[in-house]
Amino acid sequence: MKGHDVKIQDRLVVVLVSTRNPLNIGAAARAMSNFGFEQLRVVSPFGPSFRETKSAVGAAALLKRAQEYETLAQAVADCSLVVGTTAARGRRLDHELISLPEAAGLLRRQLRSGRVALLFGSEKRGLSNRDLSCCHWLIRIPTSQQQPSMNLGQAVAVCLYQLSQHRISRTETKRQANARSEELDRVTAGLLDALRVCGYLESPLNPTSQQKLQRFVRRLSLTQADAHLLLGMLRQMKWKMTKR
Amino acid sequence: MKGHDVKIQDRLVVVLVSTRNPLNIGAAARAMSNFGFEQLRVVSPFGPSFRETKSAVGAAALLKRAQEYETLAQAVADCSLVVGTTAARGRRLDHELISLPEAAGLLRRQLRSGRVALLFGSEKRGLSNRDLSCCHWLIRIPTSQQQPSMNLGQAVAVCLYQLSQHRISRTETKRQANARSEELDRVTAGLLDALRVCGYLESPLNPTSQQKLQRFVRRLSLTQADAHLLLGMLRQMKWKMTKR
Repeated sequence: MKGHDVKIQDRLVVVLVSTRNPLNIGAAARAMSNFGFEQLRVVSPFGPSFRETKSAVGAAALLKRAQEYETLAQAVADCSLVVGTTAARGRRLDHELISLPEAAGLLRRQLRSGRVALLFGSEKRGLSNRDLSCCHWLIRIPTSQQQPSMNLGQAVAVCLYQLSQHRISRTETKRQANARSEELDRVTAGLLDALRVCGYLESPLNPTSQQKLQRFVRRLSLTQADAHLLLGMLRQMKWKMTKR
Repeated sequence: MKGHDVKIQDRLVVVLVSTRNPLNIGAAARAMSNFGFEQLRVVSPFGPSFRETKSAVGAAALLKRAQEYETLAQAVADCSLVVGTTAARGRRLDHELISLPEAAGLLRRQLRSGRVALLFGSEKRGLSNRDLSCCHWLIRIPTSQQQPSMNLGQAVAVCLYQLSQHRISRTETKRQANARSEELDRVTAGLLDALRVCGYLESPLNPTSQQKLQRFVRRLSLTQADAHLLLGMLRQMKWKMTKR
């Protein structure tokens, strides 16, 4: 991450509106924590018990710091863009509806200049019309038409995953070094040798068989370590086949 | 969707291994249903109660149809690519680890020619080393280093969201069919056999050696044809080593 980059995780606010089940608030907090987001706001949750829910594995501190508001308008007062999420099941919407992959780009752009709120409605009804009137536009996660409505925590996870795509550094392991051609040639020679000794290939060798074997060994996409391993196996088998 | 397109949802199998909490199986089923995936397999779940869990909102039928297996090897026997998911918290991994966005492209390509299994381990421990030895490679969801471990249902949702993002393009070339897991198991068994006969491996066999060999065979990315070729070679060598 470069010095001038804005860390979107610091400017995005997740707002849970009228969530009924405290476990879902915990699950949302866990997802936020997985993707490095810190700012959780809740609007009229069912009770204060959400702060202690066990579903917030690894996100207890985030949950403790969550800000609680009586109205959505108060919760998003300091945000320069407010975006709701919806399954949009045939509901007549007055808002522009943007698919998540495209929306993520728009949100990231906006996050360069100010705070953005991402809203999730209650488990049963989603965001009310009144909630929607606080929104600039809406996001739809591209789900199946037969079963569009997602679990709250899963919806939060999917949105934050997509949003964080270009910011979190890649930590995957490097693939082991591939064997060089000369190493593959040694494996091919060792295999040829063993196959002649056991009678699988005729001797003297037919050039077509040799080429086939060369290609076969290359298709194995051996790493250097695996090439050495295979060579050792072949040598031991040849020793066994030829010893008297 | 056009007639010639392969529907990846029909060929991807979600495999939940040793899941403890039936609610999580239900949550995974719901996520599958949200993104149009149908094939759920479970390996030694905690109890049969998972089929009735209420967390599978809208996915009760999918859950009823889920197939149950005693071992992972049985569950993935007909799959030509087996990919595990991991938070990879400092665990030493012998597998290539690929970040989800890139992995999704690889999976989609493979889904053109065969069935693919996507594995999720238990809530506490993830996939065991024994489970990992059934995998060709591993996926990592790019989560924060401070809090890498995701909720099971959320991890399933994020993976399936990313996978369903793009349809398989028809312009990609067809790759030779990869060997199925049961074929790779036969190759592993043949190799074990030959290596014991020649004294490369001790007898009785040490389980670690067996797992190492399983992983070695999976790294070879054998096509079906190449698996048969290799088996034939091994049989002939073994015959030669044991004849009097």
